[in-house]
Amino acid sequence: MARFDGRANDQMRTVSIQRNYLKYPEGSVLVSFGDTKVICTATVEEKVPHFLKGSGEGWVTAEYSLLPRSTQSRNPREAAKGKVTGRTQEIQRLIGRSLRGVCNMKALGERTILIDCDVIQADGGTRTASITGAFVALVDAVSRFHTLGQPFPVIDFLAAISVGVIDDHVLLDLCYEEDSRAGVDLNLVMTGSGQYIEVQGTGEKSSYSRQQLDGMLAAGETGINQLIEYQKEVLGETAWKIGRAD
Amino acid sequence: MARFDGRANDQMRTVSIQRNYLKYPEGSVLVSFGDTKVICTATVEEKVPHFLKGSGEGWVTAEYSLLPRSTQSRNPREAAKGKVTGRTQEIQRLIGRSLRGVCNMKALGERTILIDCDVIQADGGTRTASITGAFVALVDAVSRFHTLGQPFPVIDFLAAISVGVIDDHVLLDLCYEEDSRAGVDLNLVMTGSGQYIEVQGTGEKSSYSRQQLDGMLAAGETGINQLIEYQKEVLGETAWKIGRAD
Amino acid sequence: MARFDGRANDQMRTVSIQRNYLKYPEGSVLVSFGDTKVICTATVEEKVPHFLKGSGEGWVTAEYSLLPRSTQSRNPREAAKGKVTGRTQEIQRLIGRSLRGVCNMKALGERTILIDCDVIQADGGTRTASITGAFVALVDAVSRFHTLGQPFPVIDFLAAISVGVIDDHVLLDLCYEEDSRAGVDLNLVMTGSGQYIEVQGTGEKSSYSRQQLDGMLAAGETGINQLIEYQKEVLGETAWKIGRAD
Amino acid sequence: MARFDGRANDQMRTVSIQRNYLKYPEGSVLVSFGDTKVICTATVEEKVPHFLKGSGEGWVTAEYSLLPRSTQSRNPREAAKGKVTGRTQEIQRLIGRSLRGVCNMKALGERTILIDCDVIQADGGTRTASITGAFVALVDAVSRFHTLGQPFPVIDFLAAISVGVIDDHVLLDLCYEEDSRAGVDLNLVMTGSGQYIEVQGTGEKSSYSRQQLDGMLAAGETGINQLIEYQKEVLGETAWKIGRAD
Amino acid sequence: MARFDGRANDQMRTVSIQRNYLKYPEGSVLVSFGDTKVICTATVEEKVPHFLKGSGEGWVTAEYSLLPRSTQSRNPREAAKGKVTGRTQEIQRLIGRSLRGVCNMKALGERTILIDCDVIQADGGTRTASITGAFVALVDAVSRFHTLGQPFPVIDFLAAISVGVIDDHVLLDLCYEEDSRAGVDLNLVMTGSGQYIEVQGTGEKSSYSRQQLDGMLAAGETGINQLIEYQKEVLGETAWKIGRAD
Amino acid sequence: MARFDGRANDQMRTVSIQRNYLKYPEGSVLVSFGDTKVICTATVEEKVPHFLKGSGEGWVTAEYSLLPRSTQSRNPREAAKGKVTGRTQEIQRLIGRSLRGVCNMKALGERTILIDCDVIQADGGTRTASITGAFVALVDAVSRFHTLGQPFPVIDFLAAISVGVIDDHVLLDLCYEEDSRAGVDLNLVMTGSGQYIEVQGTGEKSSYSRQQLDGMLAAGETGINQLIEYQKEVLGETAWKIGRAD
Repeated sequence: MARFDGRANDQMRTVSIQRNYLKYPEGSVLVSFGDTKVICTATVEEKVPHFLKGSGEGWVTAEYSLLPRSTQSRNPREAAKGKVTGRTQEIQRLIGRSLRGVCNMKALGERTILIDCDVIQADGGTRTASITGAFVALVDAVSRFHTLGQPFPVIDFLAAISVGVIDDHVLLDLCYEEDSRAGVDLNLVMTGSGQYIEVQGTGEKSSYSRQQLDGMLAAGETGINQLIEYQKEVLGETAWKIGRAD
Repeated sequence: MARFDGRANDQMRTVSIQRNYLKYPEGSVLVSFGDTKVICTATVEEKVPHFLKGSGEGWVTAEYSLLPRSTQSRNPREAAKGKVTGRTQEIQRLIGRSLRGVCNMKALGERTILIDCDVIQADGGTRTASITGAFVALVDAVSRFHTLGQPFPVIDFLAAISVGVIDDHVLLDLCYEEDSRAGVDLNLVMTGSGQYIEVQGTGEKSSYSRQQLDGMLAAGETGINQLIEYQKEVLGETAWKIGRAD
Repeated sequence: MARFDGRANDQMRTVSIQRNYLKYPEGSVLVSFGDTKVICTATVEEKVPHFLKGSGEGWVTAEYSLLPRSTQSRNPREAAKGKVTGRTQEIQRLIGRSLRGVCNMKALGERTILIDCDVIQADGGTRTASITGAFVALVDAVSRFHTLGQPFPVIDFLAAISVGVIDDHVLLDLCYEEDSRAGVDLNLVMTGSGQYIEVQGTGEKSSYSRQQLDGMLAAGETGINQLIEYQKEVLGETAWKIGRAD
Repeated sequence: MARFDGRANDQMRTVSIQRNYLKYPEGSVLVSFGDTKVICTATVEEKVPHFLKGSGEGWVTAEYSLLPRSTQSRNPREAAKGKVTGRTQEIQRLIGRSLRGVCNMKALGERTILIDCDVIQADGGTRTASITGAFVALVDAVSRFHTLGQPFPVIDFLAAISVGVIDDHVLLDLCYEEDSRAGVDLNLVMTGSGQYIEVQGTGEKSSYSRQQLDGMLAAGETGINQLIEYQKEVLGETAWKIGRAD
Repeated sequence: MARFDGRANDQMRTVSIQRNYLKYPEGSVLVSFGDTKVICTATVEEKVPHFLKGSGEGWVTAEYSLLPRSTQSRNPREAAKGKVTGRTQEIQRLIGRSLRGVCNMKALGERTILIDCDVIQADGGTRTASITGAFVALVDAVSRFHTLGQPFPVIDFLAAISVGVIDDHVLLDLCYEEDSRAGVDLNLVMTGSGQYIEVQGTGEKSSYSRQQLDGMLAAGETGINQLIEYQKEVLGETAWKIGRAD
Repeated sequence: MARFDGRANDQMRTVSIQRNYLKYPEGSVLVSFGDTKVICTATVEEKVPHFLKGSGEGWVTAEYSLLPRSTQSRNPREAAKGKVTGRTQEIQRLIGRSLRGVCNMKALGERTILIDCDVIQADGGTRTASITGAFVALVDAVSRFHTLGQPFPVIDFLAAISVGVIDDHVLLDLCYEEDSRAGVDLNLVMTGSGQYIEVQGTGEKSSYSRQQLDGMLAAGETGINQLIEYQKEVLGETAWKIGRAD
């Protein structure tokens, strides 16, 4: 099957991560997966949520938003409506949970890292691009306060990718056009050591078999490995700190 | 490993589904998975959301709520706070999506089935009990307007179960105590024909390997099969309609 | 005049109060007045509202809600709408005020008893059933922390009943059908010693005379006495504590 | 017992109703009960709520608000908090219900009369002053569109007064100081023909006996009669229209 | 050009400021600019916003609201809608900023003066009447706690007026009718010493030239001077305190 | 006086406007005034607000938002707080009003142009950069549907700039550091023909004299002229359409 944009079924879109995109945040990147573009920032706050006070542990949390015209037709601003949609909440909970999965909360100390993912242009895969980019912003923010000789609070690499099934073909990294046609959609979040943090496979238009699940997991893993290679390249020397205990 | 309540690792809690629990709704059940108790109702409305008007197709959607003292310490009423939490939205989106996965929207006609899942007592697995119970309420509601000789709008059975990993043991149908200790938590929604509708595996406290994923999928499938057997028993003759094209 | 459900004009519906209905709350009952069914729970919190801090006195407050399909046609969830209706607020204020009327706030100590009344099925009289059931849940919750030899914080029995006028007949304990036809509707809250806590007589469709008011007060008092007899039976030995100063 | 402001127990405060207080509304008054001052306006809208469309009947509804510094210490603006308190909702529902009690909805036609009661200065009895003043504004608004020879939509006079019990004395028309000391508080809404529209007797600090209820009803009736005499005087010739069928 | 109400182009409407209009607030006036009538109150609170705690400085802030029938057609209550409109926020920010411009925050001490401007009748110029009246309420409130021999916290007089251009004529103090026809509208806030606090010139229907701006500034200054003369007269001896350092 | 960043007092920061910045909107630019960066998009909707239906005229409106980490310390997302601040509302009303000032609403037809200004990085002057950039996005959006031979709906150029006074020096185009030190702040919106659309001069920390106002107006006009020259350059041939009647 020929893909919408000419890619091979197991081929990702062009990925780019630009570090230090903004001047104020402790970490900030512009990440692109093809035409999907997200500004990810990481803010360090010297306080923790109520339930962690006095625990010596830190926290990582995330917020996510679409600019109104990041999408083909304008989607109303959540601030104007006065509430956050279910989709937005689901995505920001996923981002936060995924990043916490590769953090050593003791090493973080009583700090909160607040991740903001603002989608500038949305062409499918905004949540996976957000996680992949936010990871780099997180590493940069953590590097600001990390003291040499102490365990680095980020303990493994982390990336995310979507996979889908259209007409029984497993396709990697769906663009918007493909995403809206896919009967099954799997979002995969994995670590540098090949462990799963999150597997979310949803069959809205059709159910799917074990064989299809296996095919999607395999394709996704290939994509994740490429993303983590690219993160290493982008992070340069900073990459060496990840997972270091001293 | 001995489980908290003496069950074998692959043993579910006692499940019960009481049909026609309330007098007004078109479908209503009280479902229990052990001490978890949920009232599920199905309301038939002769209208559809804006985006389906004139399409000839129907819709299924769901709302979910915890009674304030369904939990060990009282959780504040969302109506009093004036907003629905992210967790609630995530669960009600999951319930709606799962039920839509076994519905023939053309056969439903331009109707909405509104599912309400109100948790009376919460001891883990409220979302899986909700899906499993709501399915029965949905079938009863649909039977009210279904005309003999027409395709029945519900095309397959549907049930859901949770599986988790504690100390490297795969445990089926986690109670609250286990759920809060589990490093990995998988919610599985499957059909009567053994297809996946939703696989959601989350590693908040630790990541998980492919082998662990496979173990959880296998255990979950066993649980699903038992639930669907029980649904058939509870539905009696009505069970025969499901998936019938005439 | 023959009543809708065959009762005599001064006859109540079958009343039932099931104690310890749920496993977590300090007090919980399922109360039924005919087809009206309400879950009432009482939660003990070791804190008081701001205006009572340091006073040595406690507080009792209540929340009330209808499950969406407790009613004939589904009524939208207040959490989804993001605000609590005037009717709900009026009822929860009435419940709280009535229960406070039989509490010794000094004996309660600096604690709040939070009452939740969740209507499972609504067939008229939900506020009076709520007050009557919540009283029992309150007594059970208070018994948990009450120390022998101290004055018991609940100082008198309390029950509530509705009375209405249809075609110049005074009817006791209106069901929904009657409630919507009644021109005048009186809600009566009284204590075990025959004192009024609340008299609320409303003539929406027609005004009413002094003679009709007297008739409704007399009929209501009869109902209240029966309800309090039943509460005593249900509470068994616990009933002896009420109003005891030692 | 000497009253706070030297009045006899059955003596009302000085009452004043100034018609045509504002230039835009169809009806508007400034009503005072002693230091309690309320602006009541009546707006005629040529539409009815959804549930009355096509019925040929009209509707009367009310809103109530305290100016922030109408009270001794400033009370925050409900618009700033983004929600209307339970007390406000209870009062505005009472005002609307009371006025509807003396209206012929058929004669009103498919119109809504929207009553606004804005309290400028609050010294007890704001809801009873509101009802008493709003009645006059309503009559003026209705006179604007009433056609001679048609039944006048307002069919009887209407006034409201508060009564309370302090140290076993029944006091008429409580000021704020008395209201906060009273153990029992009764709000009474009555018509020109001596019928009850609303009796709301609340014992927050203590319960009350049948004898006390009777005493309060008697005192209240005396006050209501004086208020209605005064309304007639203020309305002048317009008073003759009330209750006229032609 | 003849003005709508017969005034000369540079003539203001009749202005009146009635001090001590209400009994509870520390300062309160009823201000009228023709048919525009606003109740302005000043409340003294012995606390400051978070950002000023411990600074030794005070704060002045304002809220503004239209009564529903202050306008020709009823405008819905912001409390009922649950949010404050942009127009309201703009006006209340302007009032607060303007009053702060003539206050010595050190001399105020750690206190907040909360200004409430509630428009009873709106016939154009509600924001300028509000500022002009609120100034007098502020002076009265500040006089309550000011100690002789200390610098008086209000350091200069303050008034505001609107000016507009219709058909190339500069008109002072627009009434509603004129305001809605004016292509250009300038609100001017000035001090007793002839300095500007705020110049807001808006051309919604047409742009305006430098010459027109100069004409509006000149006309406005004339109006401001008259208003400040009147404030002095109304304040009587209290006027002498303003700007006094001892 | 040496400026914070070495500029001359009447020197603007480097300005850049990048057209067609995003792929979906009908018009989109990235505008920078020094380190201040704003994404401005223009969306064309084939409908108008209620009050313009059937009038044959169009509408232009704007929304404005700061990304959370566009600022030095993170500012909470308005969507999360559920309401839009007064500052945001004031700015978006200013942007909409300014753009409407150079539009021919008849020529627009019954269409709404919805402008979104999302600030990526905030270093002072975000509202003036927004207006200046949004103008270009508006022209691009309008060009999409404009038919040759018809009057072009944008009738004049439009730009905005801030001016302030620090230590009696008039400074053009304040950066954040200067803005927070300036006692007086003037925002100026002008057209290509040298007319004012909006003059907003605010003295929060100190009042200002006529001479200072004149100085700020002169400096601002110089800046506006440079901005409009640059807009012409950026728009290229499209610039010729502006103000053309055919």
